[in-house]
Amino acid sequence: MPLTRFSVPALHTVTRQLAAVAMQQAEPDLVIRGGRVFSTYTERIHEGKEVWIKSGRIAAVKPAGTWKKTKGSATRAFDARGGIVAPGLVDPHIHIESSMMTACAYAEAALLNGTTTIFCDSHEIGNVCDVAGIEWMLKDARVAPLNIFLTVPSTVPATSPKFETAGGDLTAAKIGQLFDKWPEAVALGEKMDFVQVAMGDERSHAVLGEAIKRGKPISGHIYGREFVAAGAASGINDTHEAIDRDIADDFLENGVWVFLRGGPPTTPWHSLPEAIKTVTELGANPKRVCVCTDDRDADDLFVFGLDWVVREAMRAGMPRETALSMGSLHPATRFHLDNEIGGMGPARRADLVLMNDDLEPQCTWYGGELVVKNRRVTPLLEEALSQPYRYPKAAYRTVKLPRNPQLTPALPTKKVTANTIRTELPGIILFHDRVELEAADSWDAHFAQHDLCFVTVVERHGKSGEVAHGLLKNFGLKSGAVASSVGHDAHNIIIAGTNDADMQLALATIKASRGGVCIVRHGKVVAEVALPIAGLLSDLRARDVAKASTKLKRAWAQAGCTLPYMGFNLIPLSVIPEIRITDKGLVTVPGMQILPLFE
Amino acid sequence: MPLTRFSVPALHTVTRQLAAVAMQQAEPDLVIRGGRVFSTYTERIHEGKEVWIKSGRIAAVKPAGTWKKTKGSATRAFDARGGIVAPGLVDPHIHIESSMMTACAYAEAALLNGTTTIFCDSHEIGNVCDVAGIEWMLKDARVAPLNIFLTVPSTVPATSPKFETAGGDLTAAKIGQLFDKWPEAVALGEKMDFVQVAMGDERSHAVLGEAIKRGKPISGHIYGREFVAAGAASGINDTHEAIDRDIADDFLENGVWVFLRGGPPTTPWHSLPEAIKTVTELGANPKRVCVCTDDRDADDLFVFGLDWVVREAMRAGMPRETALSMGSLHPATRFHLDNEIGGMGPARRADLVLMNDDLEPQCTWYGGELVVKNRRVTPLLEEALSQPYRYPKAAYRTVKLPRNPQLTPALPTKKVTANTIRTELPGIILFHDRVELEAADSWDAHFAQHDLCFVTVVERHGKSGEVAHGLLKNFGLKSGAVASSVGHDAHNIIIAGTNDADMQLALATIKASRGGVCIVRHGKVVAEVALPIAGLLSDLRARDVAKASTKLKRAWAQAGCTLPYMGFNLIPLSVIPEIRITDKGLVTVPGMQILPLFE
Repeated sequence: MPLTRFSVPALHTVTRQLAAVAMQQAEPDLVIRGGRVFSTYTERIHEGKEVWIKSGRIAAVKPAGTWKKTKGSATRAFDARGGIVAPGLVDPHIHIESSMMTACAYAEAALLNGTTTIFCDSHEIGNVCDVAGIEWMLKDARVAPLNIFLTVPSTVPATSPKFETAGGDLTAAKIGQLFDKWPEAVALGEKMDFVQVAMGDERSHAVLGEAIKRGKPISGHIYGREFVAAGAASGINDTHEAIDRDIADDFLENGVWVFLRGGPPTTPWHSLPEAIKTVTELGANPKRVCVCTDDRDADDLFVFGLDWVVREAMRAGMPRETALSMGSLHPATRFHLDNEIGGMGPARRADLVLMNDDLEPQCTWYGGELVVKNRRVTPLLEEALSQPYRYPKAAYRTVKLPRNPQLTPALPTKKVTANTIRTELPGIILFHDRVELEAADSWDAHFAQHDLCFVTVVERHGKSGEVAHGLLKNFGLKSGAVASSVGHDAHNIIIAGTNDADMQLALATIKASRGGVCIVRHGKVVAEVALPIAGLLSDLRARDVAKASTKLKRAWAQAGCTLPYMGFNLIPLSVIPEIRITDKGLVTVPGMQILPLFE
Repeated sequence: MPLTRFSVPALHTVTRQLAAVAMQQAEPDLVIRGGRVFSTYTERIHEGKEVWIKSGRIAAVKPAGTWKKTKGSATRAFDARGGIVAPGLVDPHIHIESSMMTACAYAEAALLNGTTTIFCDSHEIGNVCDVAGIEWMLKDARVAPLNIFLTVPSTVPATSPKFETAGGDLTAAKIGQLFDKWPEAVALGEKMDFVQVAMGDERSHAVLGEAIKRGKPISGHIYGREFVAAGAASGINDTHEAIDRDIADDFLENGVWVFLRGGPPTTPWHSLPEAIKTVTELGANPKRVCVCTDDRDADDLFVFGLDWVVREAMRAGMPRETALSMGSLHPATRFHLDNEIGGMGPARRADLVLMNDDLEPQCTWYGGELVVKNRRVTPLLEEALSQPYRYPKAAYRTVKLPRNPQLTPALPTKKVTANTIRTELPGIILFHDRVELEAADSWDAHFAQHDLCFVTVVERHGKSGEVAHGLLKNFGLKSGAVASSVGHDAHNIIIAGTNDADMQLALATIKASRGGVCIVRHGKVVAEVALPIAGLLSDLRARDVAKASTKLKRAWAQAGCTLPYMGFNLIPLSVIPEIRITDKGLVTVPGMQILPLFE
């Protein structure tokens, strides 16, 4: 049997074995000795200890030298000299889909980063495939060599059918059923519609109620200090969206756990350095503070893992011991799993990481098995990764496009005012610019004069078949088209382009690969990542997805796009100000009006 | 309806109301203003805040002055000037039975101490009445104006039928059923048989398994650092028996939460000052440290409540903010209830306490209702306390004695060696003294020569009808008899005395009151506390029980007894060294041999 979460027996079946090893009346399977041992419980690092492992769990942490090799003993010993043995890292909030790979593939990158547990919110695949997609990913997760827990997607669709056509519609009843069917569904995922929550929207509160009734934690999105108390009053008790010191402090004061999000430093998601100031400047106790990654491009996953976020917390002023607790015990405690993971206590899973003094992971054990040795995947892990979950055929049939869609708007024959979407870095907020267009012979003339290009959304769930046209300002695309089937959150096809032919080719390319991202120039596809599973995920291994992602990003920059690929995907996300485009047209936020392209 | 835990509606039914109040679109029921607000989440005390309460829950903590009285408003305001508003205290480990009162009666004393939640282990009544007794107490708890959660008794009987006759026999199956039937059964109570646990005893591990399977926390007793890892490996993850610095440190390192126990300073149970040194001397982080009371005589309950233990933690070096967190948020977090209690976050129950700067409780709110005002019970609480749970008749019929028991041993007619029990303060450990008795005319001669008296245990569950005779050395009883139906843990009748007549009267007195404690001298009952419910509990109000308890303790000391009443009750507890007496005879611990009185 390949290595999975279930390779370690349930604790109640092995307590007698573990007690016998702890009492030195039975031999451990493995002793990790010679290193220092990190205690997340007391936030100290101890010299002179060795870790005894039995049946994939920690049996005891003993004084160094207690274990002695005896003839005929089956116990293995691992020399951890110079290193720090710590519990495997625990990432309290991530979206696997952001990395464009399956859960099985994600596991490889996570383990290389010393991460052995993740709490994922699969709301992207939920938006495309509803409950079925979430359950495929749960099956995928059960086969992965990684502890993967689900925070059940809470806000699918992100808005309502009036403003976008999504594939999923997760009602309160469906969410309740997911909780009852899947024990790994340990919490409710990020409740993104924070204004509706604050205003008492019935559907939103019914969803929250399903989690509250079952005693499950609830994750929330809240922008704006004036909404924090109402969010907490509605049952929200963690957030990864504390974007500055003061709102982070508000969250903590309102009983909301704060997951400091570290993103690659060039992205607007790197809020940790500001948010951590609630501790470093305002003196809040860090006991309810964690670190998380949230979203990672496939290639960034290898460089900016949770271990990197832990180090960022250190660089921002946390003692090493506290920073590591924020990435292990604190998330485990937050999700009521501190008896199973997050520390080096007996009975816990032997999910461990050996780090150097800079907290860089060198070796990882998963359920007592060495899966990463000196930063390389071991044969045991290779074997597990070679037998991933296979998504069913239905997962490969989610891009259902209208026939012969018109991808560009008709050229105005008289002077009009266009409602354009202006992009600005960092790219989260998009601005509503009204641009006067005098009558002209071609779109090229308008584009040159006003720095515009087309932006089109094509419904792809085979429901409405609708197509919406818009104009992007400042996007910088020199020529050709870029397109993606990962247009948050409904994941319709978003295409930006300078001419109809390249946009049609981009769309055809995505259709042919059953989902993906591509860049087209002068009638040629210059870069492509195929995402055939739900139009969101590759079925390749992590490094292969990372390579394709790196190549795509390079071509993306060469095409002149000012927004990075991940920012481009947010253009249809109709919950962030000021103006977005969905298959229903231009949507203003928070006004929630649909505007015509030309007035 | 009188005030109970259920007077506050379930959170999922009121989130919309709470959000509306937080958004200032609806009025709060109550505003507590003018005080400082204590944050257990960040361990800070804030000036300039006011607490808004709606439907018995916190809706928001707002900047002072946000609420303004308007004409016709139904909002009540409370002036908290000069005080600190804090979450109600949370006691993570207590035995209600130790206070000799019902749960409903206990609530009064708890609320006067600012305690609004307790986790009780009703293993005394379980030892007498099995599941039925635990369920009576759970019903009692549901009617009480206090949050009472159960940690299910795990070690009933404390040893086995070979060593004592108990009324209860809580098998793993029964424990599993209690978990499944009673949602307030949130954890497994103290697993006292730590040696059996470490040695892999099947019954013990089956009991642990019932909790582990259900994801419930497990409380444990462990004496001896060599047993800590095995206990943790068996699934134990909290303890209130950390009796010194080093074992407290071991517990924390093994992932076991430490509940620092504060007892009246004259008792051997006051282990807090030593155990806390894991933090103050060894530098362990206090995030997994709590405070608790464990056992309290009825009268001590009013003086040495959890608030006093919090202050003891302060006196032992904890910052005020940390000490208070140890008595509120930390226990709530340990039991996965930090979204409901333990802090001033919105959505939480409005269980609050107003303290002065020395952390002495002045006022208590329970579910948003003022129950203690200026250290006095309010009429609302009086009303609730006047309608307590009535235990069924079966609860009053638990003292089932053999007919005409022989309470004293026959006088040896030749020289013998007696296996005596020597008492020494603090009274936990009892010593095995072999005493040579030459032939004599009367027991009085032996008693005078060797400082002895009789000690007799009479089975009272109507099972074996057995009577065991022993001799107590150094107990100090001058004349007469003392007797109790609270002989831990089987709760057979224990009688010490200098003559048969007074011992018979003591037994008859206990029989007449259907359980209790009494002191007899020269053929007269000089003090008595009737404990008719299960032979353990009075059915009076807390202050009345406290008064009777004070009177009893005074007479007890006057009788010359060197062990206090609570220590006397431990004489039959056959899990503590070196020698005890049960209805089966003299039992050595840990050897677990039954010895004859004379050899």
